[in-house]
Amino acid sequence: MAGLVTGIWAHPDNTSGEFLTLDYWTKMGRKLEEGGIDFLFLADQFAYPLKNGTMAARAVEDAVAFPMGDPLVALSAIASATSRLGLVATMSTMTEPPAHIARRLSTLDSLSGGRIGWNIVTGVNQESTTRLFGTALRPHGERYAIADDFLEVTLKLWEGSWEDDAVIYDKANRIYADPAKVHEIKHEGPYFRCEGALPVPPSPQRTPLLFQAGTSSAGRRFAAKYAEAVFIPGSHPEKAVADIAAIRTLAQEEFGRDADAIKFVCGALFITGDTAEEAVRRRAEMAGYSTLESAKLEWSYHTGMELSDADMDKPIPGSRQTTEDSSKSLVEKYASGKGAERQPQTIGEMLEHLRVHGTTGLGFVGTPEQIADEVEEFVDRTGVDGFLIEPFTTPGTYDDFVDRIMPVLRERGLAKTAYDGSTLREHLFGAGNVTLPENHVGASFRPGVSEQVK
Amino acid sequence: MAGLVTGIWAHPDNTSGEFLTLDYWTKMGRKLEEGGIDFLFLADQFAYPLKNGTMAARAVEDAVAFPMGDPLVALSAIASATSRLGLVATMSTMTEPPAHIARRLSTLDSLSGGRIGWNIVTGVNQESTTRLFGTALRPHGERYAIADDFLEVTLKLWEGSWEDDAVIYDKANRIYADPAKVHEIKHEGPYFRCEGALPVPPSPQRTPLLFQAGTSSAGRRFAAKYAEAVFIPGSHPEKAVADIAAIRTLAQEEFGRDADAIKFVCGALFITGDTAEEAVRRRAEMAGYSTLESAKLEWSYHTGMELSDADMDKPIPGSRQTTEDSSKSLVEKYASGKGAERQPQTIGEMLEHLRVHGTTGLGFVGTPEQIADEVEEFVDRTGVDGFLIEPFTTPGTYDDFVDRIMPVLRERGLAKTAYDGSTLREHLFGAGNVTLPENHVGASFRPGVSEQVK
Repeated sequence: MAGLVTGIWAHPDNTSGEFLTLDYWTKMGRKLEEGGIDFLFLADQFAYPLKNGTMAARAVEDAVAFPMGDPLVALSAIASATSRLGLVATMSTMTEPPAHIARRLSTLDSLSGGRIGWNIVTGVNQESTTRLFGTALRPHGERYAIADDFLEVTLKLWEGSWEDDAVIYDKANRIYADPAKVHEIKHEGPYFRCEGALPVPPSPQRTPLLFQAGTSSAGRRFAAKYAEAVFIPGSHPEKAVADIAAIRTLAQEEFGRDADAIKFVCGALFITGDTAEEAVRRRAEMAGYSTLESAKLEWSYHTGMELSDADMDKPIPGSRQTTEDSSKSLVEKYASGKGAERQPQTIGEMLEHLRVHGTTGLGFVGTPEQIADEVEEFVDRTGVDGFLIEPFTTPGTYDDFVDRIMPVLRERGLAKTAYDGSTLREHLFGAGNVTLPENHVGASFRPGVSEQVK
Repeated sequence: MAGLVTGIWAHPDNTSGEFLTLDYWTKMGRKLEEGGIDFLFLADQFAYPLKNGTMAARAVEDAVAFPMGDPLVALSAIASATSRLGLVATMSTMTEPPAHIARRLSTLDSLSGGRIGWNIVTGVNQESTTRLFGTALRPHGERYAIADDFLEVTLKLWEGSWEDDAVIYDKANRIYADPAKVHEIKHEGPYFRCEGALPVPPSPQRTPLLFQAGTSSAGRRFAAKYAEAVFIPGSHPEKAVADIAAIRTLAQEEFGRDADAIKFVCGALFITGDTAEEAVRRRAEMAGYSTLESAKLEWSYHTGMELSDADMDKPIPGSRQTTEDSSKSLVEKYASGKGAERQPQTIGEMLEHLRVHGTTGLGFVGTPEQIADEVEEFVDRTGVDGFLIEPFTTPGTYDDFVDRIMPVLRERGLAKTAYDGSTLREHLFGAGNVTLPENHVGASFRPGVSEQVK
């Protein structure tokens, strides 16, 4: 669940302080479904900004990347309030065992009628998370190796345990399932061992739709192998084009997947108004909620570099965790100064840029028609498949998008007019595409396909 | 979530096959709330019966202790459909890290308005679970030592992180919380390390209501220290009296708790009818759904002893896991033959007894008035505070209880006529008792109370 949104939580129209009520989430879900939005995405992490190795007081005071509730447990209430909307939960491969995640997401996929997506994260902001979990810091590359092993276990459980026609449910003859069609999987990987069957019958999608972000070399490889939707930064269109091409090529050449097997999604801010001036004024109002101090905390939170006492006139330092996906893209984004008059040269200029432009780096600001023009141009230029709407005010951002922007996007043929099918995978890949395609690595774990499944 | 109920799933009136739909759970929740029932209890485990070390085919075929979905993820949908009903989730201290469970249950307690209970289990049916998780088998005593360390972490996070007035939420001055009142806890135990703050503000109950079962020596000690409600077997009233007295005495003498700080609950079957004969006939009908084969599987599932090829004329063997709470009570229960004409002497007699009387061992069968008489007598004799209703058919069992039995219990003053307060802790301990009492060990972790909290 998103918690409060840094800075903007204090906007008078923002109701994000109600994030620990069910009403907040069910209303949001219904509004998005009314607008035909493909899915509600719930971010997650346990981390908060540190200062000198302990909780940063200013992060608590100003709600910078803090607080954060558990997103997973809210999903069944949202599922109950909706019937088509996809629900994407972020879960890390570093904090819970694979058999648990497999059963949880499978149960949710069943309860929601096949509407669950899993945003796979390999652990961010390690220092504060590892303190909470009492675990060791792991290098970036190793975390992707762990994630790879983790995914193999979950895919074997989802795809390999139950054959399609295993459940018989014949009350008269007291046969619940055909034991010849329920298999124990066996996995002995470098990080995880698992022997047994998924204790719950397969959900509509079997494997939830797999999301991933991260454009480091290891991140791209992981995306190319597993992801069905990838979040990429949209701040530099030419970078987005390169990311898409690189991941597509890897997916086809290394993993034998189809060119259109992965959808690419950019986080973006949409701020509209009756006039361009009103939209620009609202954008400026939004920027007014960011302070230099919160920009510093966000920077340190994403990169692991504390800048609180840094000299603002010094050049931008290299990230302490430059192999991190999040910090790498942030460093690239802000060091290059998208939207700035000139490239930021100092820490102070970079923070001012971060303060004004936020972490998204991609914004569509104008009347609904102007936004549609810009979206069309951006999509033409990059080949991006969709956008993750970043919040300004809640529910204002979503109300505006559904009520004002979506109708224009639909008129232009830039957005669908109805949901494809009833499952999340169908929303993104068309009716009938309910389960993983045959050439996804997960399909190789289906009974009879591979030796890896007993 | 309960999955299918062994044997009885095949009854024509049983809808338990719908356990992977939200409607099944929200309807059940609404019915229980209509009846003023204190809480809905969701069991959980990953295990299923094994035969020669792998999944027992007959367990799959006849749905013996299998399948089982994840109970936690269904709770917010049930919470959304109700407003008073308590919701108790079973979660093991062996499969997930404490910081995760702390944040999940806290989030759910907030989302539900303070209605969450945690049934703490230390891991049952280890062989099949450890295969799935790739973990080592742990001796019974060590599992309680792990659980003790685990509880300390979660209690520190729940009670020690946020002071009551930490959240300010002053939008005008942009102060979300007072950093001087949000504390990082520090725990260095034999099994878990944790340093940090619960990333989510405190829920209404802070600590969910703590449930526990298990009447071994280590189990009693754990209950006496932590539990606010304890499930005890009711098959032998004199044993229930002894369990209650032993746990109460330990709680008072060793842990300084009040005599009435723990409620005791017995699992029981309630089968009613218009006449005593009809109720007895339905009880017999229920027994007809159990087979010798399913009794064998249940026995092996609970005790770890496989009896599939055993000589039925041999004496009852000692449990391979005799220190297990579940198997210990099962062995005690069936070896002593409650309800039988004479004490079972052989494996065959014991299994026949298990087949007919089920794992509950306590049953109230008769007209609502007869049941009320028996309940009254049982409560007078044992001092038990309540019952966990075991299902025969679903929703029939709950409909009968709410519509037919509850009104008579209320007339007799054996059941409350309205909910006490709005939180689960208040339902059990009276209005106003929302958080842990001052002399619960958890209260010692509150800021300023103990050195253990920074």
